[in-house]
Amino acid sequence: MNQGVVFAIIYPAMPKGIVVHKYGGTSVGTPEKIKNVARRVQKVKALGYDVVVVVSAMGQTTDELIDLMHKITEDPHPREYDQLISTGEQVSAALLAMALMEIGMPSISLTGGQAGVVTEDIYKKARIKEIRLTRIKEELKEGKVVVVTGFQGIDSKGDIITIGRGGSDTSAVAIAAALKAEVCDIYTDVDGVYTADPRIEPSARKLKYISYEEMLELASLGAQVLHPRSVECASIYGITIHLRSSLNDNEGTYIKSAKEVDKLEKKEVVRGIALDENIAKVGILNVPDKPGTAAKLFGALAIEKINVDMIVQSIHSGGSQADMAFTVDRVDMKKAVAVTQKVANELKATGVISDPEVAKVSLVGIGMVTAAGTAAKMFEVLSKEGINIQMISTSEIKISCVVSRDQGRKAVSVLHKAFGLEK
Amino acid sequence: MNQGVVFAIIYPAMPKGIVVHKYGGTSVGTPEKIKNVARRVQKVKALGYDVVVVVSAMGQTTDELIDLMHKITEDPHPREYDQLISTGEQVSAALLAMALMEIGMPSISLTGGQAGVVTEDIYKKARIKEIRLTRIKEELKEGKVVVVTGFQGIDSKGDIITIGRGGSDTSAVAIAAALKAEVCDIYTDVDGVYTADPRIEPSARKLKYISYEEMLELASLGAQVLHPRSVECASIYGITIHLRSSLNDNEGTYIKSAKEVDKLEKKEVVRGIALDENIAKVGILNVPDKPGTAAKLFGALAIEKINVDMIVQSIHSGGSQADMAFTVDRVDMKKAVAVTQKVANELKATGVISDPEVAKVSLVGIGMVTAAGTAAKMFEVLSKEGINIQMISTSEIKISCVVSRDQGRKAVSVLHKAFGLEK
Repeated sequence: MNQGVVFAIIYPAMPKGIVVHKYGGTSVGTPEKIKNVARRVQKVKALGYDVVVVVSAMGQTTDELIDLMHKITEDPHPREYDQLISTGEQVSAALLAMALMEIGMPSISLTGGQAGVVTEDIYKKARIKEIRLTRIKEELKEGKVVVVTGFQGIDSKGDIITIGRGGSDTSAVAIAAALKAEVCDIYTDVDGVYTADPRIEPSARKLKYISYEEMLELASLGAQVLHPRSVECASIYGITIHLRSSLNDNEGTYIKSAKEVDKLEKKEVVRGIALDENIAKVGILNVPDKPGTAAKLFGALAIEKINVDMIVQSIHSGGSQADMAFTVDRVDMKKAVAVTQKVANELKATGVISDPEVAKVSLVGIGMVTAAGTAAKMFEVLSKEGINIQMISTSEIKISCVVSRDQGRKAVSVLHKAFGLEK
Repeated sequence: MNQGVVFAIIYPAMPKGIVVHKYGGTSVGTPEKIKNVARRVQKVKALGYDVVVVVSAMGQTTDELIDLMHKITEDPHPREYDQLISTGEQVSAALLAMALMEIGMPSISLTGGQAGVVTEDIYKKARIKEIRLTRIKEELKEGKVVVVTGFQGIDSKGDIITIGRGGSDTSAVAIAAALKAEVCDIYTDVDGVYTADPRIEPSARKLKYISYEEMLELASLGAQVLHPRSVECASIYGITIHLRSSLNDNEGTYIKSAKEVDKLEKKEVVRGIALDENIAKVGILNVPDKPGTAAKLFGALAIEKINVDMIVQSIHSGGSQADMAFTVDRVDMKKAVAVTQKVANELKATGVISDPEVAKVSLVGIGMVTAAGTAAKMFEVLSKEGINIQMISTSEIKISCVVSRDQGRKAVSVLHKAFGLEK
């Protein structure tokens, strides 16, 4: 291979297929950055691949549009919200197509609708139903780089629909899946997925591979590099996501099926550690332990649109009463306490407690399913360091502990070392 | 009528039909102004009319997008230009729909494509071919105010197409024509059409009615209130345009067929006087007077995309040679002189002259067709004031004279008085 080792590794030599690139708002934040993206696409195209590029809105555009909107209404109709917000991606896509043509690359920008991205008939948070590929394929056939607006599609009426937070990642993966692309490169401002947040744990190591399942847990645990929906979509269609930096040519992290990762990498029980410092704990004490109690409380919280994450219920020795504790987003704590207090009064519980000074530390790894003793080791490590565990929650591939916030970073650090995740 | 005399005059009492409003960039330039537009629409809707609103992009949006574009390319692909620029109207339309809903008026914004505005397959300057009304009618039937993005439609491929300068006026008139609307209100920052520019001639009078033909001449003569294409479209479909200010509730000027205007207004031979100070004169001297000479010169100018306005040819007494003079946009003068010099060399003409210090004064009025003596009177008035006429050009409804620029405003003033156009 004479195209340089980086691309040789990233893209298999033969047969040349389609690759999908996705660039986030930071990567297309200025005209200069858009030109950089064009040059990057040019390199890949020069290797013989067809390239489809999915873009987000430029940097602050979406926030600016929302500010403008709030000067008119605090409660926009979701349809008009989508009609307004979707212009951001249309601008960046057209500019990127222009930048590509400026360096001699035939190119065309397509809105979600023009690209055949059909969604459910739900404004602001629809899911993609189907990608009608006719137009994209036609343009690729003519040798063009196809630039598609991320984050949006059209519904059955032809209305513009946005697909919610992290939508551009999902657009890119869905288009990659429909096109049976070789790989979906998601460019961002981080280098890849690390064993822990490198800002917290300097010895954190970049993972070369990670499974969809592990990535899903990490994504929803505060490692905000990829939106969970895009990972879910990739896992359903078996699309390899390559999460990498738009600032250099380094390889990032490949997200693949557990089976493939298993073949490629030596087995490690724990693959990564996530820290979520944006949570608060709420507890309700001495609730009569009878059917319907939990439903009543969490139903009331759901009505108020408060997302509840961990839930722990402990039964008192007597057996007729229980304590319940749960975690919510920190910003929702006050509201959650009010709702809980109301329910507590109705249930004749003896009190409501809350604590915003907590954090959640989680170990993630597919190997945990079969490797017993991981939880025990975690508890032991934390205990040795004098870190008190306030709540515990486990799933097949993760163990989460709520600890005092001022001990959260220390917990990450000692666990990182104890489970051998250093460089 | 208890709704107030202004609306009683503007909208016939029965039957209630559809009215189309068009608001330019200045009228929707800020969130506050958008709210004002919403309140204005509310008043009309309260009278029982269905309202379709056509909007331009907010104030400086289009220029900002063009600036951004120029940081990437000086020569954008026209398709991508349209894809980029069309977002401006999408933003203002969505915001207006939100503002309407905010004051309790059901509303929906539609892009050109959603509204069924189908254009020719030509980027940047297509003409509207057809308005497919299904969606607009559906939404009106549901009681909604329909806000349509001006200046754009889609072509046969579903690509976004803009329709060139003044496009939003044309969109509004075309939609009014398709809907058989009662009237198309075009809101702008002037009060209506005046007998002369009020900044030049303080005694200028606002015209209550003017014919399409007269408006067309005035529009192309520097009275930049309405784009000629919109007037042309209105004349073809017999749509009444009401040109008025978005700053007050005053009646503006109704633009109707000459026949209707004739019924409504006492006959005046001269209806308005236009002044164009943005021209320059170029002359070529002693050209051999043989077939093909003019074609050669104006062909060469056309190739360089120089628009030529007036052309005057004078034959010398001998008969074998002629002088030719023509006017161009002032910014094009240098280029025009260079082209003309080249042709002059080939034709062995004796010289090329030019003068940027000229202006064109024009009388416009449908009555001129039948009223002899208007031209003679014009020349006499100018001569009495010591204003020398350098070129003359006439059509059925207008007479234009090129004079020294420093005498242009004086010419307007004396003609305004002589033809009895004062308040």
